[in-house]
Amino acid sequence: MAGSTFGHLLQVTNFGESHGPAIGCVVDGCPPDLALSESDLQPDLDRRKPGTSRHVTQRRESDRVEIVSGVFEGRTTGTPIALLIRNEDARSSDYAALADTFRPGHADYTYWRKYGVRDPRGGGRSSARLTAPMVAAGAIAKKWLRETHGTVVRGCMQQIGTIAIPFESWDEVERNAFFAPNAGLVAELEAVLDQLRRSGDSVGARLRVVASGVPVGLGAPLFDKLDADIAYAMMGINAVKGVEIGAGFGSVTQLGSEHGDELLPDGFVGNHAGGMLGGISSGQDIEVSIAVKPTSSIRLPRRSINRAGDATVVETHGRHDPCVGIRATPIAEAMLALVIMDHALLHRAQNADVRHALAPLKARSNSA
Amino acid sequence: MAGSTFGHLLQVTNFGESHGPAIGCVVDGCPPDLALSESDLQPDLDRRKPGTSRHVTQRRESDRVEIVSGVFEGRTTGTPIALLIRNEDARSSDYAALADTFRPGHADYTYWRKYGVRDPRGGGRSSARLTAPMVAAGAIAKKWLRETHGTVVRGCMQQIGTIAIPFESWDEVERNAFFAPNAGLVAELEAVLDQLRRSGDSVGARLRVVASGVPVGLGAPLFDKLDADIAYAMMGINAVKGVEIGAGFGSVTQLGSEHGDELLPDGFVGNHAGGMLGGISSGQDIEVSIAVKPTSSIRLPRRSINRAGDATVVETHGRHDPCVGIRATPIAEAMLALVIMDHALLHRAQNADVRHALAPLKARSNSA
Amino acid sequence: MAGSTFGHLLQVTNFGESHGPAIGCVVDGCPPDLALSESDLQPDLDRRKPGTSRHVTQRRESDRVEIVSGVFEGRTTGTPIALLIRNEDARSSDYAALADTFRPGHADYTYWRKYGVRDPRGGGRSSARLTAPMVAAGAIAKKWLRETHGTVVRGCMQQIGTIAIPFESWDEVERNAFFAPNAGLVAELEAVLDQLRRSGDSVGARLRVVASGVPVGLGAPLFDKLDADIAYAMMGINAVKGVEIGAGFGSVTQLGSEHGDELLPDGFVGNHAGGMLGGISSGQDIEVSIAVKPTSSIRLPRRSINRAGDATVVETHGRHDPCVGIRATPIAEAMLALVIMDHALLHRAQNADVRHALAPLKARSNSA
Amino acid sequence: MAGSTFGHLLQVTNFGESHGPAIGCVVDGCPPDLALSESDLQPDLDRRKPGTSRHVTQRRESDRVEIVSGVFEGRTTGTPIALLIRNEDARSSDYAALADTFRPGHADYTYWRKYGVRDPRGGGRSSARLTAPMVAAGAIAKKWLRETHGTVVRGCMQQIGTIAIPFESWDEVERNAFFAPNAGLVAELEAVLDQLRRSGDSVGARLRVVASGVPVGLGAPLFDKLDADIAYAMMGINAVKGVEIGAGFGSVTQLGSEHGDELLPDGFVGNHAGGMLGGISSGQDIEVSIAVKPTSSIRLPRRSINRAGDATVVETHGRHDPCVGIRATPIAEAMLALVIMDHALLHRAQNADVRHALAPLKARSNSA
Repeated sequence: MAGSTFGHLLQVTNFGESHGPAIGCVVDGCPPDLALSESDLQPDLDRRKPGTSRHVTQRRESDRVEIVSGVFEGRTTGTPIALLIRNEDARSSDYAALADTFRPGHADYTYWRKYGVRDPRGGGRSSARLTAPMVAAGAIAKKWLRETHGTVVRGCMQQIGTIAIPFESWDEVERNAFFAPNAGLVAELEAVLDQLRRSGDSVGARLRVVASGVPVGLGAPLFDKLDADIAYAMMGINAVKGVEIGAGFGSVTQLGSEHGDELLPDGFVGNHAGGMLGGISSGQDIEVSIAVKPTSSIRLPRRSINRAGDATVVETHGRHDPCVGIRATPIAEAMLALVIMDHALLHRAQNADVRHALAPLKARSNSA
Repeated sequence: MAGSTFGHLLQVTNFGESHGPAIGCVVDGCPPDLALSESDLQPDLDRRKPGTSRHVTQRRESDRVEIVSGVFEGRTTGTPIALLIRNEDARSSDYAALADTFRPGHADYTYWRKYGVRDPRGGGRSSARLTAPMVAAGAIAKKWLRETHGTVVRGCMQQIGTIAIPFESWDEVERNAFFAPNAGLVAELEAVLDQLRRSGDSVGARLRVVASGVPVGLGAPLFDKLDADIAYAMMGINAVKGVEIGAGFGSVTQLGSEHGDELLPDGFVGNHAGGMLGGISSGQDIEVSIAVKPTSSIRLPRRSINRAGDATVVETHGRHDPCVGIRATPIAEAMLALVIMDHALLHRAQNADVRHALAPLKARSNSA
Repeated sequence: MAGSTFGHLLQVTNFGESHGPAIGCVVDGCPPDLALSESDLQPDLDRRKPGTSRHVTQRRESDRVEIVSGVFEGRTTGTPIALLIRNEDARSSDYAALADTFRPGHADYTYWRKYGVRDPRGGGRSSARLTAPMVAAGAIAKKWLRETHGTVVRGCMQQIGTIAIPFESWDEVERNAFFAPNAGLVAELEAVLDQLRRSGDSVGARLRVVASGVPVGLGAPLFDKLDADIAYAMMGINAVKGVEIGAGFGSVTQLGSEHGDELLPDGFVGNHAGGMLGGISSGQDIEVSIAVKPTSSIRLPRRSINRAGDATVVETHGRHDPCVGIRATPIAEAMLALVIMDHALLHRAQNADVRHALAPLKARSNSA
Repeated sequence: MAGSTFGHLLQVTNFGESHGPAIGCVVDGCPPDLALSESDLQPDLDRRKPGTSRHVTQRRESDRVEIVSGVFEGRTTGTPIALLIRNEDARSSDYAALADTFRPGHADYTYWRKYGVRDPRGGGRSSARLTAPMVAAGAIAKKWLRETHGTVVRGCMQQIGTIAIPFESWDEVERNAFFAPNAGLVAELEAVLDQLRRSGDSVGARLRVVASGVPVGLGAPLFDKLDADIAYAMMGINAVKGVEIGAGFGSVTQLGSEHGDELLPDGFVGNHAGGMLGGISSGQDIEVSIAVKPTSSIRLPRRSINRAGDATVVETHGRHDPCVGIRATPIAEAMLALVIMDHALLHRAQNADVRHALAPLKARSNSA
């Protein structure tokens, strides 16, 4: 209830700080008999971890995850799965000078006001480092969804700063440092990021996350709508400032005759809904876009105040991402997977006995 | 856990269907000794209710609310406040023909798949009519926030279809049928809506909701961030497809040196953050924008299928809003007020003993 | 979170006060397609309602329940079922003199300290009248359990004051005013109760509640153990001071070689466990006993204080039960049924895919 | 929601298995600025740990706890406190032979039916070893309660087998191996336990837990009553079969004129209520008694079946407590402290603004 537990039936309790001895989480509610080992979790952790290219922070963390409980002889037992990641490269000296001041755009000021005390080392609890355990938890959800429902959750970059990145293919996404689904724009993105790093500034980004093969019927009528829970999950990721489902803000200028996806015997016509109607999955692709603000930690001098209320100037010389949106891609995938798995469990709790004569309607053509 | 209860400590449990005998909610967790009567709730219900102008649905509902419990001699007792609104104008015959078919853009298909059975009368549980109890609950939250913290929650229209509505003043908002904060655009909006009604189509909208005078420190670090809970609340409103906090999707193209709001001894410079940093309120105005899709019920013929899977055509001749975004304004205010009050209670549960020597930083100039 | 919502997945939100216009509850999470009407709920309400014999309170309430939502054409839709019971015989004048004083054994003093204000009419929110909606909700759970799992939940009296009531048969329970499973003791019980009524005093009772045909595997390992949730549900009933599972306090003097129920290929030997091992149902009968304290409202003068802290004397002349334990029988059944149904839903959420080659072990002989 | 998280606002999420690499928990919601180090937690862990006398299991565990997060420079930060205890003496070979059979009185059978798979080493998740993290969490609650409210939580033995232990003094409790509050009975208890160890059998026990100095007003009216939450917490402790509040089952034979505690200007007369009225604390001592069944693991041969359903015999030769009730004393204290602290936070969330002119009523004489 203090905000460190995520989910309804599949619950992830997160702990740790950026420069403490370890970070981790406890995943409770996972069904038993799922084959699981650290090797299932590490690939997504490696996609998120720092230092994978010159375009992200150079902090050196191997982000090796240890499964502490909940798995016996290689299979989940239905009891809580505790995951532990030791912090390795915590250079707290980088931040010593900042303990007394509030970095603009960061949570320094609000934490201090809320709690009276705060751990200033690397942002403490407010660091994006705390998303690593969520990526590991999300890998469990991805595996369970894939194996039990054939659901696939993927993310890619849509825009960095002013450079829109038209979708070409999912295959391209893992081949470049930007999760860009379009090889033709990689050089341009590299140039932009290199320039930002030199200038000491940062830039925002827009990501897209898609779940395909989602069972129909997940969600709830009023609150805990599937899209509401997705919005909650996405807005909770560090630096996210906007969330769209399907047509999103584009629906403002649409007419009803244009927006509402018609149904034909062989499937839906279009997916402006983004895969949910009335808060419940339709079986079409779930389509989510998020806006990630530019990294708050930049080298350029910024005006601020200290704890005494006096004016000061902040220059951040630690190791930071010029575009935090890049590493947000596997995070957003993980959060989406956790929400969908949670709702799959919720759905069968109430509706396991519902039977239909007809197979669910398919999307006529999957969105790219 | 089936999605009819909203909130952490201040919990609103909603019940009812569009054409059942009554709708309502139970508000649990309200502090005692708040002066409260039906007259505190009715004004916001009247702002939301149908039939207030020719631009909204002509269903005739007085939406009179009855306080059934939780108030004794005009003051709350700390026990659950049950609110009841009788349905009066439920013309179920309007919908008889639709029981077997799935209206495009509506939840008909997904409810049927999820539950096997559904109440088709007026959309049943998926009707936007179920937001009326939330507006009444939100009026309690507004009153408590205003009296205990001086917090004011207001909403207005930002855009209908392609017509952007520059903010002029809050005073104007209650003087026209569109919650438009700009008198100069009212005639144009009337023309657009009249034309839509004639053509049998509908259009989307973009709203803005603002909370001023919010205490600093509300929210939680990781999940249940104040902005995450706001996104959840907003995306849960019928027809909402997008949520922005502060700069929102505009932050995608911003630089870090532009986005991060600097702090001066006399207050923040700008409010790109939208009033929250790291998920915790900063004391600045909370700024939220939402996208509302065009009404799904339109007179124009739409292709669909029936429960047997066969092709059919749907034409909706009931009484509907050409732009559901209009009546969403008081709803969005109510949901924002509920989230903020909930977090005010959560905050003092954990942090009632935190003391600071300095007063919280103010916004240098309130956003309009 | 203010304690008016019961359950994990099947959630009952209760509202109302003893002398307000109505009491009721919202049952959320019930599976769809259960045949349901008021006639399914009324029999248990009639077993609990006042005025059924001279041995219970003479308040005249018909306790007619109205299903306000969640049922369409006689079947549940999966959406929240709201139940409303109008208060009819609320003689608040009986209590006017008590508004300023604290009745010993009642919640008057603690409510006043907690909330600062309280509704003194008939005990307000602390009245046992608020169990009526739970009995109605429990009737839904009983029906679902019986139809889907063959589970039967029954209760009976074990002891009133010093009169122990040996179990003879379930058939007898509904044939007397005491829910006594033994016709031979009814005359003696009548004499005791008549004497109490004359003397203006009251007496305690011990009840037994049994669930037969419970599926194996319900419950959780650590917290939310099935027996822990049962203890929570029972101790939450007005006037309950003790809860036992299986051998209960009798296990204090048992040896391990005596207590531990052995397993044979044709079933368990004995049921000291009371139907649960490690917090999870074993398939044997769930056996619960509860202690109900004597009614606090008695005619005999009692010393107390008033809100100013001055000494006073309280004599209660309203209409009260000489033994509240009697009417607690259907209440305890309802609460047990709600807990078991809730856990049946929770269980299939996580473990719907678990398959076993062997049928569950049966109890060798059902406990009487 | 799978039962590994305890509490409403102060939430403890527990993880681990008896013979896995580590056990632990995450304590979320603790207020900031509480001085805290491992040395605050270790004393209670040492009271519970195995091997402290010949009368408890001889498993050798140092039970050293590590604070992994949530504390900065010796004070809590308001963020989750993760606690880790490495398992050291996990002799899984002791249990290899038992993997296929179900030990009577244990959760082996029910876990297997529920999950299909189970970790049989030392009972896996169902081991009482998982109470160690709760004892550590409870030590945090005890410290916070003592420092902020002056509340003291203590437990002692009331009965082992047939030997009742009259209360003499709290001072004696920590001076013997049985938490017995009466030095005169220690020799007799030693003889009984020695005899049990020789015979290979075990015995039940009855404990008492008391909280003194509890603020008035904690609890909730309907569900989440303070006594209901205490019953839930106590019944959730391994091997507990019964819970009493105040007079408990003794109230069955009491008259109302005897049970109801009168109020005088200088305090309550008696405490049959056990410190709560209507589910809300009265300011008197909270008095709880629990029944702990005899240890299920005994050397004597017991009949059982294996996974194929065939008859077998189980003899347990591992290291076990002849009376698990002994080590349950610090566990019960911890659980009671956690419930009270949780409700102290809940109470101020809703009722922080309630003011009274008079000080709360005191108990006239504290129960011993």
